[in-house]
Amino acid sequence: MQALVLEKQHTLRIRDIDLPLEMGADDVRIRVHTVGICGSDVHYFTHGKIGPFVVDQPLVLGHEAAGTVVEVGSRVRHLAVGDRVCMEPGIPDPTSKASRLGLYNIDPAVVFWATPPVHGCLTPEVIHPAAFAYKLAAHVSFAEGALVEPFAIGMQAAVKARIKPGDVAVVIGAGTIGIMTALAALAAGASQVLVSDLMEEKLAIARSYDGIIAVNVRETALPAKVAELTDNWGADVVFEASGSPRAYNDALASVCPGGALVLVGMPVEPVAFDVVAAQAKEIRIETVFRYANVYQRAVNLIASGKVDLKPLVSATFPFERGVEAFERAASALPGDVKLQISFDPTLI
Amino acid sequence: MQALVLEKQHTLRIRDIDLPLEMGADDVRIRVHTVGICGSDVHYFTHGKIGPFVVDQPLVLGHEAAGTVVEVGSRVRHLAVGDRVCMEPGIPDPTSKASRLGLYNIDPAVVFWATPPVHGCLTPEVIHPAAFAYKLAAHVSFAEGALVEPFAIGMQAAVKARIKPGDVAVVIGAGTIGIMTALAALAAGASQVLVSDLMEEKLAIARSYDGIIAVNVRETALPAKVAELTDNWGADVVFEASGSPRAYNDALASVCPGGALVLVGMPVEPVAFDVVAAQAKEIRIETVFRYANVYQRAVNLIASGKVDLKPLVSATFPFERGVEAFERAASALPGDVKLQISFDPTLI
Amino acid sequence: MQALVLEKQHTLRIRDIDLPLEMGADDVRIRVHTVGICGSDVHYFTHGKIGPFVVDQPLVLGHEAAGTVVEVGSRVRHLAVGDRVCMEPGIPDPTSKASRLGLYNIDPAVVFWATPPVHGCLTPEVIHPAAFAYKLAAHVSFAEGALVEPFAIGMQAAVKARIKPGDVAVVIGAGTIGIMTALAALAAGASQVLVSDLMEEKLAIARSYDGIIAVNVRETALPAKVAELTDNWGADVVFEASGSPRAYNDALASVCPGGALVLVGMPVEPVAFDVVAAQAKEIRIETVFRYANVYQRAVNLIASGKVDLKPLVSATFPFERGVEAFERAASALPGDVKLQISFDPTLI
Amino acid sequence: MQALVLEKQHTLRIRDIDLPLEMGADDVRIRVHTVGICGSDVHYFTHGKIGPFVVDQPLVLGHEAAGTVVEVGSRVRHLAVGDRVCMEPGIPDPTSKASRLGLYNIDPAVVFWATPPVHGCLTPEVIHPAAFAYKLAAHVSFAEGALVEPFAIGMQAAVKARIKPGDVAVVIGAGTIGIMTALAALAAGASQVLVSDLMEEKLAIARSYDGIIAVNVRETALPAKVAELTDNWGADVVFEASGSPRAYNDALASVCPGGALVLVGMPVEPVAFDVVAAQAKEIRIETVFRYANVYQRAVNLIASGKVDLKPLVSATFPFERGVEAFERAASALPGDVKLQISFDPTLI
Repeated sequence: MQALVLEKQHTLRIRDIDLPLEMGADDVRIRVHTVGICGSDVHYFTHGKIGPFVVDQPLVLGHEAAGTVVEVGSRVRHLAVGDRVCMEPGIPDPTSKASRLGLYNIDPAVVFWATPPVHGCLTPEVIHPAAFAYKLAAHVSFAEGALVEPFAIGMQAAVKARIKPGDVAVVIGAGTIGIMTALAALAAGASQVLVSDLMEEKLAIARSYDGIIAVNVRETALPAKVAELTDNWGADVVFEASGSPRAYNDALASVCPGGALVLVGMPVEPVAFDVVAAQAKEIRIETVFRYANVYQRAVNLIASGKVDLKPLVSATFPFERGVEAFERAASALPGDVKLQISFDPTLI
Repeated sequence: MQALVLEKQHTLRIRDIDLPLEMGADDVRIRVHTVGICGSDVHYFTHGKIGPFVVDQPLVLGHEAAGTVVEVGSRVRHLAVGDRVCMEPGIPDPTSKASRLGLYNIDPAVVFWATPPVHGCLTPEVIHPAAFAYKLAAHVSFAEGALVEPFAIGMQAAVKARIKPGDVAVVIGAGTIGIMTALAALAAGASQVLVSDLMEEKLAIARSYDGIIAVNVRETALPAKVAELTDNWGADVVFEASGSPRAYNDALASVCPGGALVLVGMPVEPVAFDVVAAQAKEIRIETVFRYANVYQRAVNLIASGKVDLKPLVSATFPFERGVEAFERAASALPGDVKLQISFDPTLI
Repeated sequence: MQALVLEKQHTLRIRDIDLPLEMGADDVRIRVHTVGICGSDVHYFTHGKIGPFVVDQPLVLGHEAAGTVVEVGSRVRHLAVGDRVCMEPGIPDPTSKASRLGLYNIDPAVVFWATPPVHGCLTPEVIHPAAFAYKLAAHVSFAEGALVEPFAIGMQAAVKARIKPGDVAVVIGAGTIGIMTALAALAAGASQVLVSDLMEEKLAIARSYDGIIAVNVRETALPAKVAELTDNWGADVVFEASGSPRAYNDALASVCPGGALVLVGMPVEPVAFDVVAAQAKEIRIETVFRYANVYQRAVNLIASGKVDLKPLVSATFPFERGVEAFERAASALPGDVKLQISFDPTLI
Repeated sequence: MQALVLEKQHTLRIRDIDLPLEMGADDVRIRVHTVGICGSDVHYFTHGKIGPFVVDQPLVLGHEAAGTVVEVGSRVRHLAVGDRVCMEPGIPDPTSKASRLGLYNIDPAVVFWATPPVHGCLTPEVIHPAAFAYKLAAHVSFAEGALVEPFAIGMQAAVKARIKPGDVAVVIGAGTIGIMTALAALAAGASQVLVSDLMEEKLAIARSYDGIIAVNVRETALPAKVAELTDNWGADVVFEASGSPRAYNDALASVCPGGALVLVGMPVEPVAFDVVAAQAKEIRIETVFRYANVYQRAVNLIASGKVDLKPLVSATFPFERGVEAFERAASALPGDVKLQISFDPTLI
């Protein structure tokens, strides 16, 4: 089987690799069509590790995928050969305590694509538990299907925020996850979402969506802008999606009394956090780790047209040019939101 | 002061009436512009009472209102003369136990416009607590402002449902409140809302909105339609907005395991309720009584363009023809959603 | 293998029966010590069916059990041979949609002991998934372990009620489940629980617990008693645990504005439910179907001494006299709360 | 009127002072009986300020109070002359946005006893809004009534934690607020509460309560102890009640996946917070600012006997020796939990 393999830090190539391909009764075999490149894929490429996860043997990258079912296991009921699907990349132990609680994303036993030593899905065919494959409507493209994974993080953030209809929300950081979070917040009922960043190219993309107000914090203080829009009350929900420790004081100054702060971005170092400022507003703080039980919701919103992710695909590369795609991703062009790799660019 | 006065059952006229007009320090004086006619107004007109509330002395009708601030009390900070506002018609005792809990709508001491013996707002000028008047953006019309009151019921239902983004919702009943609830559910994150009714004229209005699927239950069984759209899982939330006792079995058959049933419609008699069917799915049931803390949210959603109530105004009558407006409302044309009365039809 | 077998309605005997006893890698083999008799066991005995579940072939009864681990599967980590455990009797499909949501109790695929055609545990040895066996502390008896199952229903009700510390609660019905619910409500933070019934023998048992106020509704109107104790506000939570349709009006009259009504009892027929009365207080209604994720909590509370279930065992029969135990249970002595069957009465 | 007046930092005396004593229609006049000394009272005494609140004019101290109603305003219904009551010391603007939301504690307009420039209640008689005075049962002492205020902070923490019955909880810090929080957590359903501190005298008091496990972190690592007690899962809720920045890593290591961290203690400086560690467990963090809607709950729990605060009164001083009481409080004896001042020590 061909695959896009990270041999070690900086060394990426397409080559044959042995991958286990036995079907279980609850599995489906999927011909992969589109795979998005995530920041974590790029980080393994450029740094060879993320925290405790080290690439010490060849690793197939990729975990944002959509494709077509080509075989179904004997106990599978909700999928059939020919169904177009997107796949949730983390598979928990279904009998673990976390799974029984419905929190399968924080099951320590989760097996997640492209997280050493687990191979990813940048390969023409994968076996996957059917319970974690979600059917796409005919009018939803594979590209959109492969965007469900990063959008799911925004969805998880929006669900945990418990947005109420008409809330005013803030998203700090206009990177891919920031924009996904803003779109999820709008879909979840926010009347307006302020998205802040330092980079105009990123803000321009955010601004192109109805309901998003882009704020360049080089020019405008975020808390002042929020105060102006909310009659000095503050935003009902603030999503921190930049990972910058400097964002926290703005977040606390922008959130309303009794509001929620949702921590999506992952700061490399501990953050200096003003506990008393948080207490004075008695805010609630939620943290996000991947997602659970949001894929079907995401698929529903895309199919209904309430969420349009298509403009977020900056470029699509055929699989053969996958290394080039990673090199462009590593160069981090400010106007790139999502790069994707397609096994069959002639098909949408 | 002129007003539209219900003298007694069936007898409605415009005439002078003495209304208390002393301003308090926390009040605003408002020149009324638009007042919608609610089913309760019509019911007082046609029946002379609603439950324990009997029209035994002349009563000014109307409680769905928007207008312009013409005077502000000495302690009022958030409003100024010239502000265009909509008004929340129920004023609680702010120190009651219910109010302290944030549940001011169920404070037994609430004073509510056009509920005997409290006069309504179909009169050119009213005094109102500033805390219950909400500023309208310049691009929001008085007609939309006067629609905030019925929309607030839908909002209360949507908030109590705790809709999550991507939910599939059902609204039983395509009357004014049913449509308001469907629009609130969409704004609150539902990916799709099925609205069911028996009358094609009502369904046609619902169907004109993106995201609403209209179901004529003369032709299509609601639970079957829900099963088809949700891969036999059921709807995450079912809103009962018809008030028909016959709707309850459909509601229970349509809701998903662990889902929510929100009771908005008010059946005249007790309903035969299948407790065991509800338990088998372990559903949660929420009930709705008016609204609390949703006006600002409603105003935000209208101003942002996420909710468009304008198509729901079926006709607007000048105040002088207010009796005629009530007569048309009492005739209950199936295509009428909301009739409004305007004190200044030349101004929008 | 010996077992207590219901051959058909009214015919119960102890005899040998073939039961599958293959261990899986995630299973434990358990020597059963104590099994409580549930109302459902008795109902199969006396009626031969419960709703759609019909005893049309011999059925081993019993699902409230505790015992000792005698063998562990190869993947089991949290249990060892010799551990004393209680067992959750319903095993879901762990990959079903309901299970992934954490709602495994409402998975339609649940396999539940002593529910036709699934055999129960009134047999000396059973195989069980280790994830659904919970270790008992050394000072907790097998009798208490076997009481965890009925107590779990009360716990599920208390969790769904979202009791806050200091709440006043009401439980309608002083049967076994009513008392279990009252004890769970107290453990969950209720300052006082009023338990109502018609039968003095049942009330006497409830009254023996600190914090429970027993109300004989032959003598005292429940809503009046609640009003007196709550300064006319009403109870924060009302649990309906009688299954009587006549209880519903009392329930609605007793609950406070914004309070919760939890439906635990299962009325045979639809109930005449006053929707408008529920709306006027804007109450929330929760329904209960068995339990999920409460066994460990129940075990914790029993081990800590905060909940004492020991007084609820009215009599214990050796396995050999199991038919006699069922006959007594079928006679429904008003002073009997729970009858148990023990495979080794010399051991506690 | 006599009062215990802080003239300026370090200068405290009992003397006459003019205090406003006009009754409103919604007020009660209360003869003060017992007043507890809070850490904030002591801090004003020793430092002359707390953050932005500076004692720049004479200030009557005290805000933890119980007494007897001696006069009731014309609109007061729920209290009568002779009623023994405890008083909630913070009075919000009832029409503010925060108050309407039920979050009156975070209303920026709150007027709070003994917070400059607002006088406290260490004076024989006070006027207070009846809505913020709570009747004590005959068997509850004034001393317990005056303990409701600090207990209310623990109650607020326990409510925000959303403890479920059978949870395992941790409280970091065995000071007065830590112990109050532990007792509230137990009352709210925790099966066990681990309380950690460095000082054995404080731990000894905590340990005297059933259900509390005292952990001296000089000897035992808190996360290891939690892991041992929870089969390596972690505590469902961790309350940080020490205000020490060093406690945060232990808090994050002790909480379970999906658990809650409640921030009660107020660190003087920003805390180095490990966001990624919090995200890896996807925990929820709640912050506490005083309390809202918990006084009645606290009074219920004390009256029912479920919470016993009496052992927490370390010494009671007659009003005449109030300065001496403050000097002892300022000396911070490790075995002192709460010192109180009584206007009539002959009466309990």
